[in-house]
Amino acid sequence: MTATKGLEGIVATTSSISSIIDGVLTYRGYNIDDLAEYATFEEVVYLLWFGNLPNQDKLSELRERLDEYAAIPSAVIDQMKLYPSNANTMAVLRSAISALALYDVTANDMSREANVDKAIKLQAQLPTIIAAFARIREGKEPISPKAGHSIAYNFLYMLNGEEPENSAVVAMDKALVLHADHELNASTFAARVTVATLSDMYSGVVSAVGALKGPLHGGANEAVMQMLEEIGSLNRVEDYIQHKLDDKEKIMGFGHRVYKNGDPRAKHLQKMSRELGNMNGNLELYEMSTRIEELVTGQKGLKPNVDFYSASVYTMLGIPRDLFTPIFAISRVSGWTAHILEQYENNRIIRPRAEYTGPLSQLFIPIQER
Amino acid sequence: MTATKGLEGIVATTSSISSIIDGVLTYRGYNIDDLAEYATFEEVVYLLWFGNLPNQDKLSELRERLDEYAAIPSAVIDQMKLYPSNANTMAVLRSAISALALYDVTANDMSREANVDKAIKLQAQLPTIIAAFARIREGKEPISPKAGHSIAYNFLYMLNGEEPENSAVVAMDKALVLHADHELNASTFAARVTVATLSDMYSGVVSAVGALKGPLHGGANEAVMQMLEEIGSLNRVEDYIQHKLDDKEKIMGFGHRVYKNGDPRAKHLQKMSRELGNMNGNLELYEMSTRIEELVTGQKGLKPNVDFYSASVYTMLGIPRDLFTPIFAISRVSGWTAHILEQYENNRIIRPRAEYTGPLSQLFIPIQER
Ligand SMILES: CC(C)(COP(=O)(O)OP(=O)(O)OC[C@H]1O[C@@H](n2cnc3c(N)ncnc32)[C@H](O)[C@@H]1OP(=O)(O)O)[C@@H](O)C(=O)NCCC(=O)NCCS
Ligand SMILES: CC(C)(COP(=O)(O)OP(=O)(O)OC[C@H]1O[C@@H](n2cnc3c(N)ncnc32)[C@H](O)[C@@H]1OP(=O)(O)O)[C@@H](O)C(=O)NCCC(=O)NCCS
Repeated sequence: MTATKGLEGIVATTSSISSIIDGVLTYRGYNIDDLAEYATFEEVVYLLWFGNLPNQDKLSELRERLDEYAAIPSAVIDQMKLYPSNANTMAVLRSAISALALYDVTANDMSREANVDKAIKLQAQLPTIIAAFARIREGKEPISPKAGHSIAYNFLYMLNGEEPENSAVVAMDKALVLHADHELNASTFAARVTVATLSDMYSGVVSAVGALKGPLHGGANEAVMQMLEEIGSLNRVEDYIQHKLDDKEKIMGFGHRVYKNGDPRAKHLQKMSRELGNMNGNLELYEMSTRIEELVTGQKGLKPNVDFYSASVYTMLGIPRDLFTPIFAISRVSGWTAHILEQYENNRIIRPRAEYTGPLSQLFIPIQER
Repeated sequence: MTATKGLEGIVATTSSISSIIDGVLTYRGYNIDDLAEYATFEEVVYLLWFGNLPNQDKLSELRERLDEYAAIPSAVIDQMKLYPSNANTMAVLRSAISALALYDVTANDMSREANVDKAIKLQAQLPTIIAAFARIREGKEPISPKAGHSIAYNFLYMLNGEEPENSAVVAMDKALVLHADHELNASTFAARVTVATLSDMYSGVVSAVGALKGPLHGGANEAVMQMLEEIGSLNRVEDYIQHKLDDKEKIMGFGHRVYKNGDPRAKHLQKMSRELGNMNGNLELYEMSTRIEELVTGQKGLKPNVDFYSASVYTMLGIPRDLFTPIFAISRVSGWTAHILEQYENNRIIRPRAEYTGPLSQLFIPIQER
C-alpha cells in the first residue's frame, strides 16, 4: 500500500453533476461558457439540483421558494450579535450555518423531499447571513431580503441597504454562475465525506465552508486581493512578483490540480474585470492583474485560476475583501447541496486507509519508569 | 477512470499516529489492549500528539494546561442558552465548537506552537461544552470544571454536579482510551480533507464532528441504545433481531470497513458492560447485548464494533442516550487534532476526481423555448 498524496488522479465517486474533460468544464453537460453568457444563477441552481434547465414555470416556482426561505431565524441573528465584530467572516458563516440547523425541525429528516427543501433553504439563507454580519459588525441593523429579486440583487441590496445598479447585479450574477460547481473540489469532497456517514445536510455544508476557507481553495480570492493591496500600484508589480518568484513563494490565484492549460472560468472573470474597470474609469487593478499574469505565466507556466480575476471584480463592485470567500460560498452552496443529494442517492461511507510509517511493537512501560 | 466506491482500500495518506495491521490496533505502535489496561486517557492524548508516552513531569504539565483551558468563553455559554432545549446534541457540539473559534485570537495562526495550543484547548473544552448544554437544556446553570482532576472525572462532575464514583471515572477513562484514534476513519478523514486547504484547526474539528454525527459512524452508539430500548427486555431480543435480519435491515453496532474478523476494542467494552451490570446488580442490558451478538454473528458473520457495547456501558453509567456520540467526540478529538497537526506538517490539498456519468454536449436553449 502506498499513498497517493492529495489523492491526485484517484477517482473517489461517480457523479453526473459537473465534468472537467480536456480542460472543458460543464454543469450537467452544459458548457460553462454558454451558461456564463446566457443563464441566470437561479437557472444554474435548478440545473445542478434537478439535472435539466427549468422552464419559466419551474424557475418561478424555485424563485418563490427561495424568497420564502431567505429570512433567517431571529435567534441566529441574536447569536450573530454576540459574535466579535472582528471575527473571521468564514468562521462566522460556518458558525451561523451550523446554528441554523438547530432551528430547523427537518434538519435530521433524511427523506429526499426534506433534503431538497434544505438545499433551497441553505441557498436562500447564506447570502442573508453574510449581509447581516457585514452590517452587524458595523453596528447597523440587518436588512431583510426583498421578495421578487434575484440572489445577486438581494445580496447587494442587503449588504448596502440600497437598490444595486443593474451592471453590478449582472456582474455578481455571472460570478455566481461561474463558481457554482466544480466536480470533486476539496470543499465538495469534504461535504461528501461528511454526509457519507449519513450525517445531515447542514453538517455537510458546514464542513464544506470550513474547507473553502483555506487559502489553497476559496480563501485564495481574498489572498489575491491582499497581494494587490500590498503591491499598491502598477509600477510596483514587477519588483514584488519577481521577488516572490525568486523566493519560490506561491503566487495566490495561480495553478490548479486539474487544469494544467488554464482554468476556463478565468477568461470570463478577466473580461468582467476589464469591463468594470472601464465602467469605473479606473483600470489599475485590471492592469496590475494582467501584468502579474504575464510574469507568472511567462516564468512558471502557471495559469490564473477562478480566484485570480475575481479579486479585482469584487473590489470594483465595492465589496470588502473579507467577503470574497463568503461570496464564493453563496454560489458553491448550490454545488455542495447537489453533491450531497447525489451522495445520499447511492451512499457508501467514505473511509480510505493510511499507510503506517511509525514504529510498531512498542512495549508499554509504566509512568514511574519512563 | 473508474471509481472505488467509498475509497475502500485506497491509501489516502501516510501517517504515524495509529495503525490497523492484521486486525491489531495500535496508537503510535502501542497495542490498544495494553493502553486500555494500563494507560490513562491523558497519557494517550500525549502519546497521540507527541509520539511517545509522557513521563510524570510531562504529564503534569499537559494536565495543567488542560485545566487552564477547560472553561469556555461566557459568550459561547450565552449562545448555548439561545439554543432550543431539544436541539440535537451533535449539532449543538458542532455549533459551539465553531463559535469557540470566534473568541480565539490564535484561531488562524498556523504556527505549530499555536496549533498544538489549540489542540489542547479543544481537548479541554469539548467536555465542558457537552456538560454545559446538558444542564442548560434542563434549566440548570453550567458547572465550572474543577482543576486537578482527569477529563473523565471532570466530565461526569460537570454533568451531574456531584463527585463521581471512582468506578464510574475508571470506566469512563477506559472508554475514552478506546475511542481516541482510529487511523483514517471517516471523521478523521473529513478533518484532514478540510485542513488540507490550509484551513484552521477549528474548521477541521467542526467537519469531524459533523461526520461523526452520522449513524454509519459515531452516531451508531446512540442508534444501538435506541434499539435496546425498543426491544425492552431479554425475551424480546430474538423476535426483534430475527425480523430485522429477515428484512435485510442493518443492525447498528455491527460490521466494519477494515475489521472483518472483529474489532479489537469491542471485547474491552463488552467486559466493562458485564462488570458494570454486575456492580449495578442488573445484567439485563448486557445479556440482551450478548444475545444480539450471538444472533447477528451466527447468522450474518458480522462482529460487534466499538459502538455496540459502549451503548450499554454509557447507559449503566447513567448517561442520557443523546450524549453517547458527543462522548465519542470528547475522546476522538485527541485523534482528530493529532491528524490535523500531522496533515499540516506535510500538506498537499486533498482533491480527487469524479467519474462523470451524465450527458455531454448539451445545447443551451433559451428559457422561452424550453
Ligand atoms: C491550486 C493548488 C492548491 C493546486 O495544488 P496541487 O495540485 O497540489 O499543485 P502542485 O503542488 O502539484 O503544483 C505543481 C508545482 O507547481 C507549483 N505551484 C503550484 N501552484 C503555484 C503557485 N500558485 N505559485 C507558485 N508555484 C505554484 C508547486 O509548488 C509545484 O512545484 P514543485 O513541483 O516544484 O513542487 C496550487 O496550485 C496552489 O496552491 N495555488 C495557489 C492557491 C490558489 O490559487 N488556490 C485556488 C485554486 S482554485
Ligand atoms: C460500519 C459500516 C458502515 C461499514 O461499511 P462498509 O465497509 O461499506 O460495509 P459494506 O457495505 O461493504 O458491508 C458488507 C456487507 O455487509 C452488510 N452489512 C454491513 N454492516 C451491516 C450491519 N450492521 N447489519 C447488516 N448488514 C451489514 C452490508 O449490507 C453488505 O452487504 P451486501 O454485500 O449484501 O451489500 C457498516 O458495517 C455499517 O453500516 N454498520 C452499521 C453502523 C455501525 O455500527 N457503524 C459504526 C462503525 S464503528
